[in-house]
Amino acid sequence: MDLLLLSNSRTHGHGYLEHVRDEITEFLAGATELAFVPYALRDHDGYTATVADALRPLGVTVTGVHTAADPGAAIDAAPAVFVGGGNSFRLLKTLQHTGLVEAIGSRVRSGALRYMGASAGTNMACPTLRTTNDMPITEPASFAALGLVPFQINPHYVDPDPSSTHMGETREQRITEFLEDNDVPVLGIREGGLLRVRDRSARLGGVKGARLFTRDAEPREFVPGDDVSFLLSGTPRFDAPA
Amino acid sequence: MDLLLLSNSRTHGHGYLEHVRDEITEFLAGATELAFVPYALRDHDGYTATVADALRPLGVTVTGVHTAADPGAAIDAAPAVFVGGGNSFRLLKTLQHTGLVEAIGSRVRSGALRYMGASAGTNMACPTLRTTNDMPITEPASFAALGLVPFQINPHYVDPDPSSTHMGETREQRITEFLEDNDVPVLGIREGGLLRVRDRSARLGGVKGARLFTRDAEPREFVPGDDVSFLLSGTPRFDAPA
Repeated sequence: MDLLLLSNSRTHGHGYLEHVRDEITEFLAGATELAFVPYALRDHDGYTATVADALRPLGVTVTGVHTAADPGAAIDAAPAVFVGGGNSFRLLKTLQHTGLVEAIGSRVRSGALRYMGASAGTNMACPTLRTTNDMPITEPASFAALGLVPFQINPHYVDPDPSSTHMGETREQRITEFLEDNDVPVLGIREGGLLRVRDRSARLGGVKGARLFTRDAEPREFVPGDDVSFLLSGTPRFDAPA
Repeated sequence: MDLLLLSNSRTHGHGYLEHVRDEITEFLAGATELAFVPYALRDHDGYTATVADALRPLGVTVTGVHTAADPGAAIDAAPAVFVGGGNSFRLLKTLQHTGLVEAIGSRVRSGALRYMGASAGTNMACPTLRTTNDMPITEPASFAALGLVPFQINPHYVDPDPSSTHMGETREQRITEFLEDNDVPVLGIREGGLLRVRDRSARLGGVKGARLFTRDAEPREFVPGDDVSFLLSGTPRFDAPA
């Protein structure tokens, strides 16, 4: 299994995917065809063009799966897939509707398909979308996602702002609420950070670190380069009140 | 129908519900018993004690519906209910599980029960929880909520911060995504603001205003005191792509 899970696709001051060009080249390992899943945004053609423009300098040809009569067949023929960010509820609902939850999941697990996700696309690699930051603008059939890793990721992780007067929950408070109801680790990856998974190995990369939240323990900090393979051997327990 | 819908229960620099004491007194119209729904937080007893302490100076006795053998019967006996804030997914799931969606909804619509909500409790007064800010930490049976008003509210509404370098969506961007998939007005009420509904009349109150988002129109600003009764006569259309 080969996963490149990005916290975000665009970092402040940089173009789309510009901050991770080297990582994408390494991840593709010579593959020059990439299937793109644009469902998290409404403008599928425009979104696919953005990704194609960003990856053309790397010699990669991008095809939106929405242009295929059978998106599942397009996945079956591709060496790598990129699931782009946007709204994760809309994304998951469309992955369910098109049968891509199964088509992508089984091929990635078999090792035949490399999986790259950004933001909402990274949420999809988790067992559920329960740690997304997105607004639930539409209702998927269930919250179950691809489950390529056995823990949850919170992309775009932001530290609390001590100067804020806003009374809405901080990200850390939201994840703490998640841990009250679920016994599942949550890896909050800051913008610019990423997680690279190869079979039983998981390592942080990019330029920013991550904060790991687990029930009944203090949060732990990790920096790019750190090995977090231990997260791959856990068993998530959802709806397991503390 | 008599609704007091608060953007938030605690305003920066003030105690719990302290910023709306006068509004609560007016809303209760002499009623001294209040049923409290604490399901949005895990500590039901502690949450109920917080509310009871806050409302004791107003001469109001607060009883948590979680202490009743039959929460629906507790609702049937109460002149007013307060649904407190916290996580709106957890709240809605518990309202569904306990049958309170129907018990509260029918009594409020009949005019027999006054409804006060804060934050997640205000989300519940809408047709769905699709404009909550909360993390989907658990999965309700559906996103359908009480539907006491025919439009959506976004509580804790915050304006975009032009100095931010964070790439996560602004609140306005999230609501714009909602409007791509749904043709339903969204009233973003800033912290300190509230909406008072009496039968066919709706008026903003509190100390902060609201921003109204509708499909194919520029957002409109409203200030405390403004009449927004026109929102009560619309017909929401969910899952109606633009």
